[in-house]
Amino acid sequence: MTASELISFARGAPSLDIIDVDGLKAAADAALTKDPGAALGYGTAVGYLPLRKHLADLHGVAENQVLVTNGSMQADAFLFDQLVTAGQPVVVERPTYDRTLLGLRQRDADVRPVSLEVDGIDTEELAALLAGGLRPTFAHIIPNFQNPAGYTLSLAKRKRLLELAEQYDFLIFEDDPYVKIRFAGEPLPTMLELDEGRGRVVYASSFSKTVAPGTRVGYLVGTPELIDKVRVAATNTYISPNMLAQAIVHQFAISGRFDDAVATVNAALAERVRVLCDALAEQLPEAKFTAPEGGYFMWVELPDGVDVAKLLPAAEERGVTFVKGTDFLLEGGRSTMRLAYSGVRVDQIPEGVARLADAVRSLGA
Amino acid sequence: MTASELISFARGAPSLDIIDVDGLKAAADAALTKDPGAALGYGTAVGYLPLRKHLADLHGVAENQVLVTNGSMQADAFLFDQLVTAGQPVVVERPTYDRTLLGLRQRDADVRPVSLEVDGIDTEELAALLAGGLRPTFAHIIPNFQNPAGYTLSLAKRKRLLELAEQYDFLIFEDDPYVKIRFAGEPLPTMLELDEGRGRVVYASSFSKTVAPGTRVGYLVGTPELIDKVRVAATNTYISPNMLAQAIVHQFAISGRFDDAVATVNAALAERVRVLCDALAEQLPEAKFTAPEGGYFMWVELPDGVDVAKLLPAAEERGVTFVKGTDFLLEGGRSTMRLAYSGVRVDQIPEGVARLADAVRSLGA
Repeated sequence: MTASELISFARGAPSLDIIDVDGLKAAADAALTKDPGAALGYGTAVGYLPLRKHLADLHGVAENQVLVTNGSMQADAFLFDQLVTAGQPVVVERPTYDRTLLGLRQRDADVRPVSLEVDGIDTEELAALLAGGLRPTFAHIIPNFQNPAGYTLSLAKRKRLLELAEQYDFLIFEDDPYVKIRFAGEPLPTMLELDEGRGRVVYASSFSKTVAPGTRVGYLVGTPELIDKVRVAATNTYISPNMLAQAIVHQFAISGRFDDAVATVNAALAERVRVLCDALAEQLPEAKFTAPEGGYFMWVELPDGVDVAKLLPAAEERGVTFVKGTDFLLEGGRSTMRLAYSGVRVDQIPEGVARLADAVRSLGA
Repeated sequence: MTASELISFARGAPSLDIIDVDGLKAAADAALTKDPGAALGYGTAVGYLPLRKHLADLHGVAENQVLVTNGSMQADAFLFDQLVTAGQPVVVERPTYDRTLLGLRQRDADVRPVSLEVDGIDTEELAALLAGGLRPTFAHIIPNFQNPAGYTLSLAKRKRLLELAEQYDFLIFEDDPYVKIRFAGEPLPTMLELDEGRGRVVYASSFSKTVAPGTRVGYLVGTPELIDKVRVAATNTYISPNMLAQAIVHQFAISGRFDDAVATVNAALAERVRVLCDALAEQLPEAKFTAPEGGYFMWVELPDGVDVAKLLPAAEERGVTFVKGTDFLLEGGRSTMRLAYSGVRVDQIPEGVARLADAVRSLGA
């Protein structure tokens, strides 16, 4: 590591060393050997059929409840096009993924943020809003290792959300790209599973975190009616999602290497989190955070006096970067930041935190 | 071929036998060996940078004038989102690609069809409309081997269109996926080239016809300003187009196999056109058509008494299918059809035409 090398706690993307490149080469060869017609033909908007079936089996749903997209952000875009009506309320977590906020605001949704706690969205704050008359079209929830906070929704709150959705007749958009990236604690059932087919949940996930982002393979699970509406929109937008990449991902997913690849990612991220938490405790003891049990991100609260709008340029001058917490909020978050540990090497972390601590000191805070 | 096998003159897609599957295997291996980081990472909405540079060089434009998309239909969708304003006129060819019509109508464009002749759009009909006050945002033109007609825009008309665009201040959307699929006659310069950087042309093409549709790699060439607007929209829709597929296509495009692959496609299609024209002349002598010099499609006019809405089910009963000409028109075309020869084997063609002729006879025409 050179002194001038930028250490990025900003980018929510895996470093190349935790991607199974050889496994993907083998998967590409297998896809083009076993099923060249479908891998190289136009296909249809529901996606590469063997992958669709694999996903339906994985989630215990019918095939017509699954649609594969060019990354799960494209799934979000299609879903928002279907569900968002200008001026109608939509519940989001506070903080939440900046691109989700952007997508909702571009469609003129009435965005209603509800506090996020260490065990997930504050369901009682939401219940009070609902009791007070709020009637959202849907609630957007990132249940596992939330982006940006790294927090995970508890089982009790998953059940409570489903109750509220039933009582007040709204949909839960369970946005779950990180579910497999758990390196501590026990897996929890998805709300899609807990809903047991009542149609209260539309679920999105992706292979970006388990296989590789560049494959751009995401998917939606929902009612057949909703999936069919998205299918029509997708057909008219691009005919089909990328068939070649889907066929490669499918071969990878059914190969023995998938579980190994996830294990490699999780072992690496667990170590990075440990080193990051240690470095923060040592070098920036005033920072508050909760060590994530999975995913890519950790939310850090600095003392009130620290303005991240000033901290970020000071940090970048010192060769370290992050994303300001304010980017994930409609208002507030002046002293918060999102640290991504997915793209940094372990040996970069203590140095990155040292630079960050130096930047905080430079503000006189 | 069994009697029950459906012979499809409907699908505008290449048969697997003219796709270089082995070349794509080698390209996938090369992409993942030489540049795994970019092939498997998120990338940005402009596309895989080496492919973008390749395309910029190919078209003699700056890199910031190129943006790669998930197939060229996605390029159309982004472009329409930028350019189409509800109620504003847009010129299209009559007939034109059905999905283009759909995309324009979904955005409430005032669609103005102008007659298509064997040498391309009737520029004097367009000139008269312009002289009469029509002020289109853009004219959508498929210059080579048009879908559905198979006709090619002459050099004189290319120049005339550019003159009109300059005089009446509109953009030409040159939609050119078939340009490399020329198997007879001489290549013509694109309007993008003829425009010499004046910014009157936005150009779209694709690797679907030269490499394989399942790679879903298309692209736009335009002014830096327009491309940047599309870049922002693409970022917010899906972060980046498929990096893995683009890296594979790039390796294929720079390998010695690209030209061979195009030569294979063109030789096969030339033979299919010859057999198709011969079979029509022999078995359906009342059909009028112009043998295409390239591309996938041929437009066939049947005698006025033949209603294709009745012919299609009669044909399908007999094991042959096509697309009704009426699908490519806002009105008219009752006795026309589009025959695609891209997806049929040579040995299927005489039998397919025999079934079609039998269907025509069955209508008593």
